[in-house]
Amino acid sequence: MKIETPKGVRDFPPEQKILRQKIADNLRSIFEVYGFQPLETPILELYETLASKYAGGSEILKETYKLTDQGERKLALRYDLTVPLARFVAMNPQLKMPFKRYQIGPVFRDGPIKVGRYREFYQCDVDIVGSFNMAADAEILRIVLLAFDKLGIDVQIRLNNRKVLDSLMEYAKISAKDREAAILSLDKLEKLGKDYVLKELKDKGIKDSSIKLLLPIVSKGTNNEVLNTLKEIIPKCEGIKEIEEVLKLTGSKKIIFDVALARGLAYYTGNIFEVYSSNKKFKSSIAAGGRYDRMINDFIGRSGYPAVGIAFGLDIIYEILKEKETQKSLTKVYIIPIKTLLESFNIAEKLRKAGINTDMDLNDRSISKNLDYANKMQIPYVIFVGKQELEKDVVKLRDMKSGKEELLKVEDVIDKLAI
Amino acid sequence: MKIETPKGVRDFPPEQKILRQKIADNLRSIFEVYGFQPLETPILELYETLASKYAGGSEILKETYKLTDQGERKLALRYDLTVPLARFVAMNPQLKMPFKRYQIGPVFRDGPIKVGRYREFYQCDVDIVGSFNMAADAEILRIVLLAFDKLGIDVQIRLNNRKVLDSLMEYAKISAKDREAAILSLDKLEKLGKDYVLKELKDKGIKDSSIKLLLPIVSKGTNNEVLNTLKEIIPKCEGIKEIEEVLKLTGSKKIIFDVALARGLAYYTGNIFEVYSSNKKFKSSIAAGGRYDRMINDFIGRSGYPAVGIAFGLDIIYEILKEKETQKSLTKVYIIPIKTLLESFNIAEKLRKAGINTDMDLNDRSISKNLDYANKMQIPYVIFVGKQELEKDVVKLRDMKSGKEELLKVEDVIDKLAI
Repeated sequence: MKIETPKGVRDFPPEQKILRQKIADNLRSIFEVYGFQPLETPILELYETLASKYAGGSEILKETYKLTDQGERKLALRYDLTVPLARFVAMNPQLKMPFKRYQIGPVFRDGPIKVGRYREFYQCDVDIVGSFNMAADAEILRIVLLAFDKLGIDVQIRLNNRKVLDSLMEYAKISAKDREAAILSLDKLEKLGKDYVLKELKDKGIKDSSIKLLLPIVSKGTNNEVLNTLKEIIPKCEGIKEIEEVLKLTGSKKIIFDVALARGLAYYTGNIFEVYSSNKKFKSSIAAGGRYDRMINDFIGRSGYPAVGIAFGLDIIYEILKEKETQKSLTKVYIIPIKTLLESFNIAEKLRKAGINTDMDLNDRSISKNLDYANKMQIPYVIFVGKQELEKDVVKLRDMKSGKEELLKVEDVIDKLAI
Repeated sequence: MKIETPKGVRDFPPEQKILRQKIADNLRSIFEVYGFQPLETPILELYETLASKYAGGSEILKETYKLTDQGERKLALRYDLTVPLARFVAMNPQLKMPFKRYQIGPVFRDGPIKVGRYREFYQCDVDIVGSFNMAADAEILRIVLLAFDKLGIDVQIRLNNRKVLDSLMEYAKISAKDREAAILSLDKLEKLGKDYVLKELKDKGIKDSSIKLLLPIVSKGTNNEVLNTLKEIIPKCEGIKEIEEVLKLTGSKKIIFDVALARGLAYYTGNIFEVYSSNKKFKSSIAAGGRYDRMINDFIGRSGYPAVGIAFGLDIIYEILKEKETQKSLTKVYIIPIKTLLESFNIAEKLRKAGINTDMDLNDRSISKNLDYANKMQIPYVIFVGKQELEKDVVKLRDMKSGKEELLKVEDVIDKLAI
């Protein structure tokens, strides 16, 4: 038997899991600080739930892992955390609105494997269900700003609005059947440039007169310049007011109103946003979301569940942060007993009770082998526990970086190593 | 379409997930304080990995969810975290030994559903791979003691040793073919009593002479009494020394040497342990494990991987702790803007940056509706942000329990609410 993992799934050994966990912990604490509560839904869902016509759509269903249980019931592995949220809201009519929840967990898609695409990967979602107000959209964007500030990633947020896109299509006299195609072309402006998009629009059969109306608007300008242009040409568009209100309630220069941003067209109804690292090396978005006022209603068959949310990309955030730091071990100090196993255990216990991550030689190895181990695991401190020192009620603490050693009482070691 | 979850899987709404997360966080921090590192393996494994004859065995394989990917490769959902650990160790020969890892995550078994048994449930494992020493067994038991101390659950640990059981079977002259059955009967002593076990042993065809030798030994006594008896009748048994050493290195009165404890027979080779709540209402073990020196070696086909570990039962720990506490929301303070949305957002931001979990009305509701919401969500404090107060540079803080209200500067609110 060849021992391996399935294609497209990964192990996260400690040196990766430590940082991934730190990112997830940071996001969690920001979500909680913003008044969101944790929800966990199962990985196994009924196939018919995920296949609902108001769920993720036919493309995603092709990539859905299906299985049957012993009762011959058709099940599937969830492909996102949004459909399960809708299913949970449907099953819990007693929920107080707005329902602000976050969920972090693995999702599954049996699709083609490329760089950065996996078949089992994490989603990290934060959503507000039950508020039509732009205050909710603003709160989501404020979370993004605070979260990336805490993670130490400088970001830019691209903001647009589906209603603005719709009004623009009408203004440019693009026929209903061509609108989706035209919007998808516009979305490539940032990545592929104006000439590329111009050609693609023409290739798609969009009239020159339409293109002439459209292209000047989607070109860059300050938020106010773009807003002023739009107020002239599509003055009645509700989306303009929504964008203005969100900009006012967030008040951050990192938010760029980008009329060319489209995102997956399927279920967004209002504001849409994509977050990018200022480090241009990382081209994919590191968080993305928007307002979807109809999806949960349609899924449940009841009204009253407008929603807005965002998903953070744990994998890409990890890729960005691992350049700055990786940690092989969370351990702060490693104890080497020298014929003092029981006494060392008791000293370790004192450090551990004080909250200091403490490891200890369990294999009765030589001092040099132990130092080598501590070194390879990048543990910053080592304590030698010898009989002679114990008689004097001290231990020897070694700073592995400087090599400096000192004799200290255990209490003083704790004071020194406690955070 | 009826909207429901598959049989045997669960949603964890916030009022459950908050406590479950707290338990998992507590265990995680204890594991880390003991020098264990986090590992994450995927939920999807190759079917042939889980079906290896050195893996979980044929019974568990019957309950394994199977599926195929688009490449027609046979996959399965993991049924435990131990086989994936063995698979990970096999694929990473560069790992430094001992490899001390913990993993917390869902596992899947398509078995019968009973009270407390689910098809998707959490395991929470901590294992030391690469140490033959009893110091490793002692470390695992010390983790148990510190973890339940931190969780506030008073426990008793039952300890036995497979080598002791084997020697006792030989001493009682029970033939090799009857030993497994006899050991399984002994294991019922604690739950079903001496008379029941006596009858079952007879029914299984164990000779009276054997039973007469066996039963007096497995009756209760202090750890020293039991050890002394065993030293007389099976003086050469290695397991006695192992038990003695573990008892010495842990030094806790909560550890009871129980010769009748058997546990799943399959892969344990030395010490075995089961942890119970002192609250007799909860009859199932809340953690269990032992030493398995051959399993990983057999699985990998290389020697050098003795192991000892324990699994904590997150579901049963949750059942115990939810009697003491449940929390509907992690939010500490709820802000009610009175025509002051932007100012309220900025005040919320100050509290949030200070690490205070802060929620805010996003729906422009009336004061009474907002108070009702805060009350139902059990949020302890409410802040009213009115124009008049803002002019005086203060806000009104209401203690929801006492009803007491006071006018405070935002900085003083932070001082008061920060932990």
